[in-house]
Amino acid sequence: MSNCCIIVAGGTGLRMGTALPKQFLPLNGIPVLMHTIRNFYKFDPQLLIIIVIPENEIKNWEYLCKQHKFEIPHQLIAGGATRFQSVKNGLSLAQGCRLIAIHDGVRPLVSHETLERCFSCAAINGTAIPVIPANESLREGNFNESVAVDRSRYFMVQTPQVFEASIIHKSYNQIFNSDFTDDASVAEHAGIKVILVMGNYENIKITFPQDIKIAERLLIPKE
Amino acid sequence: MSNCCIIVAGGTGLRMGTALPKQFLPLNGIPVLMHTIRNFYKFDPQLLIIIVIPENEIKNWEYLCKQHKFEIPHQLIAGGATRFQSVKNGLSLAQGCRLIAIHDGVRPLVSHETLERCFSCAAINGTAIPVIPANESLREGNFNESVAVDRSRYFMVQTPQVFEASIIHKSYNQIFNSDFTDDASVAEHAGIKVILVMGNYENIKITFPQDIKIAERLLIPKE
Repeated sequence: MSNCCIIVAGGTGLRMGTALPKQFLPLNGIPVLMHTIRNFYKFDPQLLIIIVIPENEIKNWEYLCKQHKFEIPHQLIAGGATRFQSVKNGLSLAQGCRLIAIHDGVRPLVSHETLERCFSCAAINGTAIPVIPANESLREGNFNESVAVDRSRYFMVQTPQVFEASIIHKSYNQIFNSDFTDDASVAEHAGIKVILVMGNYENIKITFPQDIKIAERLLIPKE
Repeated sequence: MSNCCIIVAGGTGLRMGTALPKQFLPLNGIPVLMHTIRNFYKFDPQLLIIIVIPENEIKNWEYLCKQHKFEIPHQLIAGGATRFQSVKNGLSLAQGCRLIAIHDGVRPLVSHETLERCFSCAAINGTAIPVIPANESLREGNFNESVAVDRSRYFMVQTPQVFEASIIHKSYNQIFNSDFTDDASVAEHAGIKVILVMGNYENIKITFPQDIKIAERLLIPKE
């Protein structure tokens, strides 16, 4: 039974202040999402790769694939109004898989070591959530009232979040709840205990225009 | 009465895995600390700039200044065993200033807009702590037991933290406490209410080797 990776690329470009959704922005001349797919493919060519993108971007994606002669096999499905619904749509294509990874399309820089840790941990424990320790001081509250918190107890959550198939299918059969911020929180709401594994610091989420510059610099092989 | 900036550059290079302390690592060929100093000098040439570095790095710094023909005026003082003691040593040179900014030497990318917000806010409210909203999901706990927290209530703390002189002098007259993680926490322990202002996303702390690459990319003028 093979494993599967659902790559959610639902962005609309609003936060980037660009017309092009961030998953299609060029990173060294190639759309971010293609880097992300290629990264998973290189890690494991047997992975079933499922891409979830907004319905009205599907034609654009197919055009981009032709333009860039992008031939890594993947299945395509339209997203929904929420990330929850988008993942759910992706899961409908992920039948008969053993482990299911759910990944942000705009994280092209996850390392193969992180992927290895995630899949290995999920194979044993049923779940694996990559995180990195908070590396700045943290405060909780708002701009007027806030308190320092002990940063050594905080982790920044990355993807792919990897689950045994039955666990994630069951989790996404719940009714949507606005507390769902990521797949870990969906699984927890279904009573599953999630296990954290170490992510990698380069595994940034491309959110702001300068993140493209940062990702380009990080893609340069170690000097 | 002029304002002052104490730049704390106490690193020993351990976390970077390099022999050279991170504040001296070359960023586009010039030590990180020189970028940081130049940034403050360009913001306000009247600022009294005080640099705190480990005693055994002073000769090295003076050599680097000669080598790079670095002539921005600054005062130099040896640091102590803790960041608290280093800031305290810096404060001993900051007499007769109105506002005192305390900054990490390894944050060369603070924007002039952030500096303007910090100094303006501290002039009115006595304190200003630059922060950015947490832009990743957060969890609290440890690798085995953790819970999702509401990231919209969390901020990542940057520098410079700026204070009215009397406030910060009074704060640093306290006995050292291991809960002191930054200047804001020192001031709060002395009963001062700190005010948060918006920092800037580029204002990263150079902690790991890849941060040098990121900073080099961010230093390139907007294209």
